[in-house]
Order: sequence, then structure tokens, then C-alpha cells
Amino acid sequence: MELTFSALNNIPMVAPKDNVAEIIMTAAKAQQINIVEHDVIVIAQKIISKAENRYVVLEDVTPSEEAIQLAQEVQKDPRYVEVVLQESAQVVRKKTGVLIVEHQLGFVHANAGLDQSNIEHPEQKERVLLLPKDPDLSAKQIRQAIHSQLGINVAVIINDSMGRAWRNGTLGLAIGVAGLTALEDYMGGHDIFGRELKVTAVAAADELAAGASLVMGQTHEKTPIVIVRGYRPQQPADANQQGIAPLLRSKDQDLFR
Amino acid sequence: MELTFSALNNIPMVAPKDNVAEIIMTAAKAQQINIVEHDVIVIAQKIISKAENRYVVLEDVTPSEEAIQLAQEVQKDPRYVEVVLQESAQVVRKKTGVLIVEHQLGFVHANAGLDQSNIEHPEQKERVLLLPKDPDLSAKQIRQAIHSQLGINVAVIINDSMGRAWRNGTLGLAIGVAGLTALEDYMGGHDIFGRELKVTAVAAADELAAGASLVMGQTHEKTPIVIVRGYRPQQPADANQQGIAPLLRSKDQDLFR
Repeated sequence: MELTFSALNNIPMVAPKDNVAEIIMTAAKAQQINIVEHDVIVIAQKIISKAENRYVVLEDVTPSEEAIQLAQEVQKDPRYVEVVLQESAQVVRKKTGVLIVEHQLGFVHANAGLDQSNIEHPEQKERVLLLPKDPDLSAKQIRQAIHSQLGINVAVIINDSMGRAWRNGTLGLAIGVAGLTALEDYMGGHDIFGRELKVTAVAAADELAAGASLVMGQTHEKTPIVIVRGYRPQQPADANQQGIAPLLRSKDQDLFR
Repeated sequence: MELTFSALNNIPMVAPKDNVAEIIMTAAKAQQINIVEHDVIVIAQKIISKAENRYVVLEDVTPSEEAIQLAQEVQKDPRYVEVVLQESAQVVRKKTGVLIVEHQLGFVHANAGLDQSNIEHPEQKERVLLLPKDPDLSAKQIRQAIHSQLGINVAVIINDSMGRAWRNGTLGLAIGVAGLTALEDYMGGHDIFGRELKVTAVAAADELAAGASLVMGQTHEKTPIVIVRGYRPQQPADANQQGIAPLLRSKDQDLFR
């Protein structure tokens, strides 16, 4: 098996109401990449959030009492902490400079995934960028737009760089999925000696998101869209349209929350 | 940027004392893949452990009192638990069917990474396979063998499928690294608007390990070796030869141990 991760070049700066599906198809065409059946398109969260105008101007935020206290504890801007809390279901861990929460969408994420790099701050007004409102839906809409224009079934993954327990450094992980089985289940499978497999589920969407993250770059690169070609999943494309849900461990099953 | 992950085909079953570097070069040649400068070779832990004869026959293990008690608590074979404890620095979490430890090598890993699938159990004697004794050294030796035979500098990553906090499904992550900066540090970098970057370190070796895991397969596939081509790291190849260490968060910096 061979997998190719190709970054699309010359992606313009994305502004609110931009059509990301159009941007993808235009950039692919310019680069003479024909999008084909089974391609997986991995898109950085940042441009989805920008297209969906998920900006918050910090000046407009009035922090609650809870946010003010927490901000003091972790040494962050109270307005910023207020936005984090509004996005969150619970605070998972906190210490000076660190605020790890469970996002309402189910991800455990530092600062609820709020983003301040590579975004514009017009009129010197500090802004933060929230995660997309419903990343599975955003992925699905892009998948549908590509299908309606090109007649081709692609999978779409929206990824974001996340920290994790135990290990240093961020990893690109999936936050929204369409047209793909996010968690590949090998339950009932057997190894090459016919022994039943114990580890039975692979976070395929996260592995695709991580690989794509390598070619997206983190700093000056303007390559937030990656076409993955050659992926042949064990299971046919997400017939049940479960999106990201199978990757999210429920709180009662989680030993680290 | 374009990254290609190619699995080597027709890798033979690996036995103790097999030379993994030779196996890689032979398989690449048979498949008409010329290994070139900057290639990253990702190798599944399992074949390294097999070549290093890291088998333990459970029948030969005498469980300690601690192992017997813990085995009862988590409902596992006391001999198996004994081996896990011998490999571990501390137990991190436990519940029925689950034993998450800090391996002596520094990884937080279910069952200390012990492996029972896709290994032979001769004479019906149950065996387990330990992680390589020193995965960084194993990676380094393979890198050196390829350099001495072909005169080419490759990077080598040994990967293993690991569970994680908060999310379901395993992910291929790096457990040994040579010739590569495992943690790409963007400290002091700036975004496209000149703003200083806050998230400053990317677990590049883990992203490579995850992408490679996709093409290795989990069940019947016999493709434990993947050549990654096109990776151009931000930083030049690991001049300090730090191996995997920069990826391992120290216990005192970890909020989840």
C-alpha cells in the first residue's frame, strides 16, 4: 500500500463566508491535481473557523466572576478565560499557564482549542478564533459540495493540533469527519497465526490527520489543505455517518478525566 | 510538499538474530525502491522485538505476591502481570481488564507494550513479546547499517500502536528514533502576521509514526516496514542524537500521571 499526502499550494487567506469547497477545487485544479474517488481531504480547523466567522473580539467579552478567579489562578486574560469557559463542558486540569478543558464538542483540549496565531486582529483589536460550531457538519457540507460539483465521493477530515497526556509536542488529530469510518474496528479479526486480536480499534481518522499535519506546517506555510491518496479502509466509508463520535471516549469510560 | 508512505512488501517472518537492516535493504531492492537521502524508515516494534528475541515464556514466570494481587484486581493472568510489573516504573491506572503503566523506558503504555498477537507460541507454550530493550539504540544501529552499506543517511523510527487518554482507538506512535529531530521546536517562530507563535513544539516523529501505521495494517498484512519520502524537517537531522527523549514528558511536568 502506498499513501500520498499532497499539500495544495496557493491557498488564499480565508475570510468569513468564503466557500472552502470551492477553494479546494480551484486550488487542486490550478495544481493539476484531479480529485478522485476515495481521496481523503484533510483541512486545518483554522480555515473552517475563519470561513464560519468564528471570531470573538476580546474587548467585547465581559468575564464572569468564575472566569476572573480562574484567570488569576492560571495567569491568563480573564476575557480569554471567559471564552474558554463558554466553549467548555468542564475544566479538566489547570495550573499556571495551562488550562485543559473538555470542549462542549467532547474533545479534551488546551484552551478549548482557541486560536490566536495566523489570524488577523483588525484595528489592533485582539481576537480569538473558536473551533467550528459543528465540525462534522462542516466536513459533510464540503464533501457534499465536492460531490455535487464533481460527482466524486471524497472523505473529509478537519484536523487540529492538540497536546496530549504523557508526551510532549502537539499532534494533528481529527475534530470533524465525513465519509470515513473514524475508528476502524478489528473486533473479531485474527492475526496471521489465527489468534484473535486483542487491540481491536484503530483511530484511522487521527492517523490520517496526523500525517496530513506534517505537510501543513505550523508557521509561515500557507498549506492548510492536504489531499491524501491511496487510503483503503478496512471498512467501507462511514455508512452510519457517525462522524467523529466513535473517537471520543465517554467520560465514564475515561480514566484520565 | 508531498509525502509518500510506501509499505515494503514480502517481508519474511522475523526470527531472533535476524538482521532487520538487511531485511529492509533486500525488500526495498526487490520492490525496486531505491532508498535515498532523507528517507524516513518506520519499523513496527514487533519485528525489532522479534529480532532481539524479546520473548518471555509465561510458563517460566513466577509471579510475585504483588503481581498475584494486582492480577486478581484487574482480572489478568498473574504471570502476565508479573512481566508487566518487571517492565514498569509505576502503575498509572488500573481497573478490570485495564493496566496502564509507565514503562521503564518512559512511555505510558497499556500492559507495558506487551504483545501477544502475530507472534508464534511454539509447543503451545504461551509467550509474550517485550518492547525492544533500547529502541533508540535499535533505530540507530539500523540507520548505521544502512549508511555503511549504501552510504545513505536515513532516519529510522520504531513505532508501536498505543492507546491514549480521552480518545478511543490506538495510534501509531514513536518509541525509538535515530537521525531525526523527534520534537520540532518552533520556539521564537512567528506566524504569517508576524505574531509570535504560542504552540511551539510539534511531535514530528509521532506524526510520521502515525501516518506509517496506516499503511502497516493491523491484522493479516505483513507490512511492518514503511518508507516515508519527502519529509523535510524544520530542523536538521537530530545533531544531538537525543532520540525519543524530547517526546517524553517528565512525570513532574505531567498533569495526567
